Amino acid sequence: MTPAVEGKAKVTRMGLDEAARKPQERLADWLAEDMAAVNALIRLRMASEHAPRIPEVTAHLIEAGGKRLRPLLTLAAARMCGYQGDNHVKLAATVEFIHTATLLHDDVVDESERRRGRPTANLLWDNKSSVLVGDYLFARSFQLMVETGSLRVMDILANASAVIAEGEVLQLTAAQDLRTTEEIYLKVVRGKTAALFSAATEVGAVIAAVPEDQVRALWTYGDALGIAFQIVDDLLDYGGSDAVIGKNTGDDFRERKLTLPVIKAVAKADAEERAFWTRVIEKGDQRDGDLAHAIAVMQKHGAMEASRDEALAWVAAAKSALAGLPAHDLRDMLADLADYVVARIN
Amino acid sequence: MTPAVEGKAKVTRMGLDEAARKPQERLADWLAEDMAAVNALIRLRMASEHAPRIPEVTAHLIEAGGKRLRPLLTLAAARMCGYQGDNHVKLAATVEFIHTATLLHDDVVDESERRRGRPTANLLWDNKSSVLVGDYLFARSFQLMVETGSLRVMDILANASAVIAEGEVLQLTAAQDLRTTEEIYLKVVRGKTAALFSAATEVGAVIAAVPEDQVRALWTYGDALGIAFQIVDDLLDYGGSDAVIGKNTGDDFRERKLTLPVIKAVAKADAEERAFWTRVIEKGDQRDGDLAHAIAVMQKHGAMEASRDEALAWVAAAKSALAGLPAHDLRDMLADLADYVVARIN
Repeated sequence: MTPAVEGKAKVTRMGLDEAARKPQERLADWLAEDMAAVNALIRLRMASEHAPRIPEVTAHLIEAGGKRLRPLLTLAAARMCGYQGDNHVKLAATVEFIHTATLLHDDVVDESERRRGRPTANLLWDNKSSVLVGDYLFARSFQLMVETGSLRVMDILANASAVIAEGEVLQLTAAQDLRTTEEIYLKVVRGKTAALFSAATEVGAVIAAVPEDQVRALWTYGDALGIAFQIVDDLLDYGGSDAVIGKNTGDDFRERKLTLPVIKAVAKADAEERAFWTRVIEKGDQRDGDLAHAIAVMQKHGAMEASRDEALAWVAAAKSALAGLPAHDLRDMLADLADYVVARIN
Repeated sequence: MTPAVEGKAKVTRMGLDEAARKPQERLADWLAEDMAAVNALIRLRMASEHAPRIPEVTAHLIEAGGKRLRPLLTLAAARMCGYQGDNHVKLAATVEFIHTATLLHDDVVDESERRRGRPTANLLWDNKSSVLVGDYLFARSFQLMVETGSLRVMDILANASAVIAEGEVLQLTAAQDLRTTEEIYLKVVRGKTAALFSAATEVGAVIAAVPEDQVRALWTYGDALGIAFQIVDDLLDYGGSDAVIGKNTGDDFRERKLTLPVIKAVAKADAEERAFWTRVIEKGDQRDGDLAHAIAVMQKHGAMEASRDEALAWVAAAKSALAGLPAHDLRDMLADLADYVVARIN
């Protein structure tokens, strides 16, 4: 276990992208010129002559505070592999468009959620705008990747898109289901987070035309980084302070999601605890104090610690994959980025 | 004007796909073997090992009564151009997946519509499922087209996807806006209908590697056919009988859409009529008898007749494009299909 992650889970709650800020800032500095080109391309391709609502909807997502983690991964992978062309800029914009499209589609409010009196996820824009503008960004991302002329890149991103959508549907159907296994959780996590991370790093390596073992190493890094990220994010949802900016603590509990610490606690539940989980997760009958009780039960079974250990194992896998690549400043920053992911729990 | 479309607009209300049934049946017979392969491929690629909800959601759209008009266009174009490979089957499935995805996304209920007390568009599935399964089908369509290995095909379909999404957003923002011009209407129509028709026929020609003038002719046919289709559909929304299966008459009026006959009537409105359109379309204050009054006003200005004439002009353009292609049974069926579109108004 690295020193940075020792100690009990006193948590600073940050968003997924916010989390890796410090090593990410160094990446952004190193790649500043490329990122400027990516930002210019994003603004250009986001525009729609005929439908001004499109940039209105996307601007607040793309301009406002986006940390651009995924495009940085593509740029870093391409540059550390010695790439000299300009397709990495197109692919970095592609990856950010796909990410933004999935954010827009995640914002669509489920009618059943509304019926349970939940607040709307999207105060600024209606459901239909979120869906259609998301579709527009998917189409734009598709146009950009076709421009690279690389069938292999298109194949990777098409497959990633399918994994993302499948993972999201799986999450929807797995929610509220106590039979959800860690295996299913992993598929969901790959869909919602790791598939785009691994595609982002893989396409950077592919356009640089490095040997296959290096392509594979960068895929593995992105995959493991994404999984570690999501496990930590899910853990923080049960451990953070409500006062900090970001998704509120307890959201997953209220949405009855089967995340890793819950799955681990359910697996060890006695009869009384099982009845508790059935009531709050399966039946959705949640009362005051239930969140605190859920956390206490998870801690009693060491579910938090075990989840953190898994995140650490994925971080180790990410760094180990990098170790097989030639020495490079960017390689070291990507390794630091992996450490920083779990350092969020400190 | 062809004999089939003479006479006053006594209308049989049919859905878009239902409309071209007779020539389409002959196309389906001619292409039966290819269509069987397309259907098998659709079933195969629709499946998801991990997320059984996906085929549940898509099956009722894809299996139930789908007339497969768009895949037939791709198959017909490829075969009449002498294509002998099997990429036309992949592209036909691609086009159907894109169509089904857009249907699913169209079903997403706008929150503002819900606030106005509108019925939900999708009784079987919640919003989130519609969005995510639609995304899955987009990703699947993308995988299929990558498998063809043709960058040009991917470019065409990527551009079509962008036009579709842009047209849908434009329709959303143009609704309720009396300033909507016929030019904007045409962009909306290309987005919601014609872009996929023209891409369907164009990719069939492209994979057959025919000369560019034939590719262009088949694009023009698909584009003009799609526009004629949509104009007729919009016209029927004001002229049909409620008793017939399909989208109910008056839907566009209730949704305050600026379709061609309305745009034409608004352009000729006197002060009193303008106040009427402002009340019912812009303000959405609709009362008993307003639909009948709207129809009367449109008829007074010849807006129905003028819209039908435009549909006929697009049919003529579609058939004229076909005339430049080598003689073929399928070419004649496509010409009949174009005539049949407007014969719905009889």
